[in-house]
Amino acid sequence: MNILLVHAHPESKSLNGALKEFTVQRLKSAGHSVQVSDLYAMKWKAAVDADDTTQRLSTTRFDVASESRHAFENGFQSEDIAREQEKLLWADAVILQFPLWWYSMPAILKGWIERVYAFGFAYGVGEHSDTHWGDRFGEGTLAGKRAMLIVTAGGWESHYGPRGINGPIDDMLYPIQHGILFYPGFDVIPPFVVYRAGSTDESRFTHIRDELGRRLDTLFSVDSIAFRPQNKGDYKIPALTLRDDILPGQTGLAIHVADREHE
Amino acid sequence: MNILLVHAHPESKSLNGALKEFTVQRLKSAGHSVQVSDLYAMKWKAAVDADDTTQRLSTTRFDVASESRHAFENGFQSEDIAREQEKLLWADAVILQFPLWWYSMPAILKGWIERVYAFGFAYGVGEHSDTHWGDRFGEGTLAGKRAMLIVTAGGWESHYGPRGINGPIDDMLYPIQHGILFYPGFDVIPPFVVYRAGSTDESRFTHIRDELGRRLDTLFSVDSIAFRPQNKGDYKIPALTLRDDILPGQTGLAIHVADREHE
Repeated sequence: MNILLVHAHPESKSLNGALKEFTVQRLKSAGHSVQVSDLYAMKWKAAVDADDTTQRLSTTRFDVASESRHAFENGFQSEDIAREQEKLLWADAVILQFPLWWYSMPAILKGWIERVYAFGFAYGVGEHSDTHWGDRFGEGTLAGKRAMLIVTAGGWESHYGPRGINGPIDDMLYPIQHGILFYPGFDVIPPFVVYRAGSTDESRFTHIRDELGRRLDTLFSVDSIAFRPQNKGDYKIPALTLRDDILPGQTGLAIHVADREHE
Repeated sequence: MNILLVHAHPESKSLNGALKEFTVQRLKSAGHSVQVSDLYAMKWKAAVDADDTTQRLSTTRFDVASESRHAFENGFQSEDIAREQEKLLWADAVILQFPLWWYSMPAILKGWIERVYAFGFAYGVGEHSDTHWGDRFGEGTLAGKRAMLIVTAGGWESHYGPRGINGPIDDMLYPIQHGILFYPGFDVIPPFVVYRAGSTDESRFTHIRDELGRRLDTLFSVDSIAFRPQNKGDYKIPALTLRDDILPGQTGLAIHVADREHE
């Protein structure tokens, strides 16, 4: 299978750098084809701006969505953006690998999403009306592909536990796993999270590497997170609220994951 | 009072640009001093890297935290970083203003946080041990100052409601309001969120502007969000989980906000 690894760390001689090398080797050994977008090494431009298009729709006012649509539809995107979109289309699975900085992905990776996720490619796909709010959250350009996060965090696992001060890791990653990956259609598999990343000696690294290896071996077989599709009946449209008879009265992020056992 | 507005939008002739101008005028009219960090206009460098320090601690391996600490403690930070830290110290209140892109802040603003929030300034402050996990979440360099988000979102308010598909707006903003603002000490006041930002005609803009004006008038008087301080007894240390007898059995992000009425 084809796998794209998007890597966002400034130092190759780091835990993240070592995990990147290991991941590439493990996947290749299993017979997969691997491409790596090493964003720092590529000096990836992080900020969306008017330089992202070679021919503006409007030269007097830069509207992000309409310029993105115009550029995507007419082949006016800057070359770095088009190249990353090709990699996404080529891939059967995409891995985003990064250190958790201030409870989210590094700016350089957020900027990769913002620029590569063009209007017509990752959003603005399908009919948009009061009866169909786009092909998204389970449908879209990247449907049928898998995605996975590999994340390092400085804190302890309990800090990200059900009652941990940082919030449960699933809730913290919801804007990424649901809002960025499930949105354009990816099936998202459970993340691989390394806690206490700052205190990793050789024996602990061996343990982490072995765990990650086992996770990579099941990249195409493990169950994905059962995020509820937007357009298969669970949500009222256009309000996009969960139907009243599903988990009645409950709120919060967990209600958007279907319980495979009990529904 | 002194107010810093950090603005992250590429087009001044936009709803965000208009709200920025209005905010500055309203605050000045009320007698406040205002500084604006207009990140796109400043061509703010988004990615953390080795160019952020004028004198490296190690030239063979770039470790973000230790280089940040070394640069902050010894005056080796690049000038753009030091200048923004001075603005933060000057301010009595800080406003972050941005469009919600992919369920979080734009990359250029995330990069402002990552670079300006140095080790020793915004993290790595105070004793770090198994009995005191740093001066953070309610304590720290920026304690006593207020912070507020002004956010525009494309979706409807119901999409971000208690059972909305995007997740409740408070949960979506938790990594920012709790993880980025409360962390170094800010008192965070409720966000001002504009929904359906794409369909704003003149009469709707007037309404939005008036609402925002009323919110700005209470910047220093409205109750802040009652996030629980890390070091005042609500959490077990070092596990940093909420004490078992507080909201027993409950999980999720909302448990980290104290209910002023009932506790």
